[in-house]
Amino acid sequence: MPLLTSWVTSANDPDHPFPLNNLPYGVFSTTSYEPRCGVAIGDMILDLQAAEETGLVRLTDEPLFQVPYWNDLMEQGPAVWTALRNRLQTLLALGAPEQPDVEPLLVPAHTAELHMPFAVSEYTDFYAGKHHAINVGTMFRGPENALPPNWLHVPIGYNGRASSVVVSDTPVRRPWGQLKGPQDAHPRWAPSARFDIELEIGAIVGTSSDGPLSVQDADDHIFGYVLLNDWSARDIQAWEYQPLGPFQAKATATSISPWIVTKAALEPFRCSAPERDVELLDHLKDCGPMLYDIDLDITLAPSGQSDTTISRTNSKELYYSAAQQLAHHSSCGCPMNSGDLLGSGTISGENAHSRGSLLELAWGGKDPIQLDSGETRSFVEDGDTLTLKGTARGDGYNIGFGDCRGTLLPALTDPFKR
Amino acid sequence: MPLLTSWVTSANDPDHPFPLNNLPYGVFSTTSYEPRCGVAIGDMILDLQAAEETGLVRLTDEPLFQVPYWNDLMEQGPAVWTALRNRLQTLLALGAPEQPDVEPLLVPAHTAELHMPFAVSEYTDFYAGKHHAINVGTMFRGPENALPPNWLHVPIGYNGRASSVVVSDTPVRRPWGQLKGPQDAHPRWAPSARFDIELEIGAIVGTSSDGPLSVQDADDHIFGYVLLNDWSARDIQAWEYQPLGPFQAKATATSISPWIVTKAALEPFRCSAPERDVELLDHLKDCGPMLYDIDLDITLAPSGQSDTTISRTNSKELYYSAAQQLAHHSSCGCPMNSGDLLGSGTISGENAHSRGSLLELAWGGKDPIQLDSGETRSFVEDGDTLTLKGTARGDGYNIGFGDCRGTLLPALTDPFKR
Repeated sequence: MPLLTSWVTSANDPDHPFPLNNLPYGVFSTTSYEPRCGVAIGDMILDLQAAEETGLVRLTDEPLFQVPYWNDLMEQGPAVWTALRNRLQTLLALGAPEQPDVEPLLVPAHTAELHMPFAVSEYTDFYAGKHHAINVGTMFRGPENALPPNWLHVPIGYNGRASSVVVSDTPVRRPWGQLKGPQDAHPRWAPSARFDIELEIGAIVGTSSDGPLSVQDADDHIFGYVLLNDWSARDIQAWEYQPLGPFQAKATATSISPWIVTKAALEPFRCSAPERDVELLDHLKDCGPMLYDIDLDITLAPSGQSDTTISRTNSKELYYSAAQQLAHHSSCGCPMNSGDLLGSGTISGENAHSRGSLLELAWGGKDPIQLDSGETRSFVEDGDTLTLKGTARGDGYNIGFGDCRGTLLPALTDPFKR
Repeated sequence: MPLLTSWVTSANDPDHPFPLNNLPYGVFSTTSYEPRCGVAIGDMILDLQAAEETGLVRLTDEPLFQVPYWNDLMEQGPAVWTALRNRLQTLLALGAPEQPDVEPLLVPAHTAELHMPFAVSEYTDFYAGKHHAINVGTMFRGPENALPPNWLHVPIGYNGRASSVVVSDTPVRRPWGQLKGPQDAHPRWAPSARFDIELEIGAIVGTSSDGPLSVQDADDHIFGYVLLNDWSARDIQAWEYQPLGPFQAKATATSISPWIVTKAALEPFRCSAPERDVELLDHLKDCGPMLYDIDLDITLAPSGQSDTTISRTNSKELYYSAAQQLAHHSSCGCPMNSGDLLGSGTISGENAHSRGSLLELAWGGKDPIQLDSGETRSFVEDGDTLTLKGTARGDGYNIGFGDCRGTLLPALTDPFKR
């Protein structure tokens, strides 16, 4: 598929993240408006609440965009998702007769503030990156026990905290926690000293279900994707995670990029999962290309300094697709709801510069990474801004994700003082 | 505190679970009404929606009881909780001049159907019963590794699925899952053959917070308690839980009793935690009696047969209070919300007949329990009805919880067929 041209001329730049091929969904406010649904096109945002009010977009008897989140549209299911995308591509295409009516509903993106694009029902974090699982397993349990016995048979995951999910540019406060290193005689209560990031893709469940889903059905339930940074306190994690899994180490914050890139926009970038080390059970078997070829970067900027790119990888490095994760998640009859968010797990490539966490990049602090300024990092330091970037590269156009960014604030001096 | 007498005479029976001292909160419907908020008093339910409409109960400018859940009241905080309880005790006390106005708003409990009393925001399950942790740890990891190293220092827990929480009397379907026993060469996809219960108390977070809470503050945030059965597929759990903790094993269903027993009703039953094996860190230290003396029973009835009591224990067997759990849960800055549900973890006593799960009662299937009918059980069988019962025994009155009951339906023949 080539670049689709729009009368919004900035969208036709082949390097722009938001061409007519993309049309990601977000929630924005301006000095004039409270938060409302919008669609990114080039340097502009189409005010979807207004488009619905004026009748330019009308998909169902009941309005869908008079609320500051995309959940009402998501719950409508794939037929309505397709109808919206088709209508938007018609309205914004070069030569569209509706241009004079649509043009007044465009807001310059630089004047808008972005908000959480959807209400998160529940949040689950998986562990579907094989290089990451081997790297972390090697550090935590030694190379002979690196990959847990179940790992090649099932996309293991744990439930996270939906309340911790925040939109890009929300500052993150270094947490306090209970810590005990292997050499410490007793645990202590202190700010985390090994605060980290995890580069992930988040899949958004669009439609609800209450029984086991096949992999194909699961894929049909997914609405779209965001970039996701699963901030992780490694020292809290090491002490708490046996035997019930990660808990407070992962509950301070989980940042997501502000624009939902729809599954439809990513169709041209589907790719197959890697060859299977062992055959999967029938109900988890691949039934088509369900990973995506999306270039992913991580940058780090110390306070007041510019970005250093500290990692370059790609989401096709995952071993399990979001569809396989959702199939497993629903397998026991667990009810899945519109607005559920599934983190992929950290995406690391094979080589040392393609790892998705500082834990791996600096190998547990043994091999600190070098920034362009000459500074080094083993973990995130106060004032650092970490940014995840994602781009699917098409034939003459890009599908961009919008950055997922967060700055670390210092720990509170007294965490109980309000 | 003695029995408080009511003009609802059934409430004055010293053995009744719902005297004027209790006043638990639920949601009910009848053939005439859609689900609405109600208060149990003796054999009757006070229709709180009607009481608000008629002006008999009016706590805030905005109405609180025109919705079929208690969350709006919970969000108001402790002062309004106290005002409601005081008002209800005034209206229902023997000799109340309002009796002629209140009497028409009473519905016989036997004509009502009970529903989920609140919308669960997120659900967390802890592991705060020491006898349970030692029993399960011994079976899973051997007696020398029974208690995890962190267990005596921190109330460990994991995030569960809010979507799995159902009200008492909702049937539970035996799940399918990925299973692999220690002797199996490969995992397989099959119905769980080791399906179990867990006897717990659930604490309901009333007011939201977004930073670390002290134990005292955490206690102030708790609204009330329910009985909770954390249905558990032990064979799914054994294969999946390393290293990320329980996931699909616990997501089929979590049953709760239909009436929220308020923290206020349980005040006379507060008791201290057991002596500490090691000193807790300051931020988790006990700051008063925060456990409760509540007798707990489990009964099992095979299909068409009567109940056998299979366990008798007490919630004071817990090592950590719900306040300590909430303090830990919030410690990393995790935002906690009104409607969050915190399971205590399985409550087992010291002796063999006071254990809170079949896994422990039948010691992993090695020592099946005997039912009154002569049948035996190692795990739950299709058609079995499991019931949790809770009673705090006061001076001439009881505070009852209302049963938490569920019947196991057989696994679907084809789980993917709708």
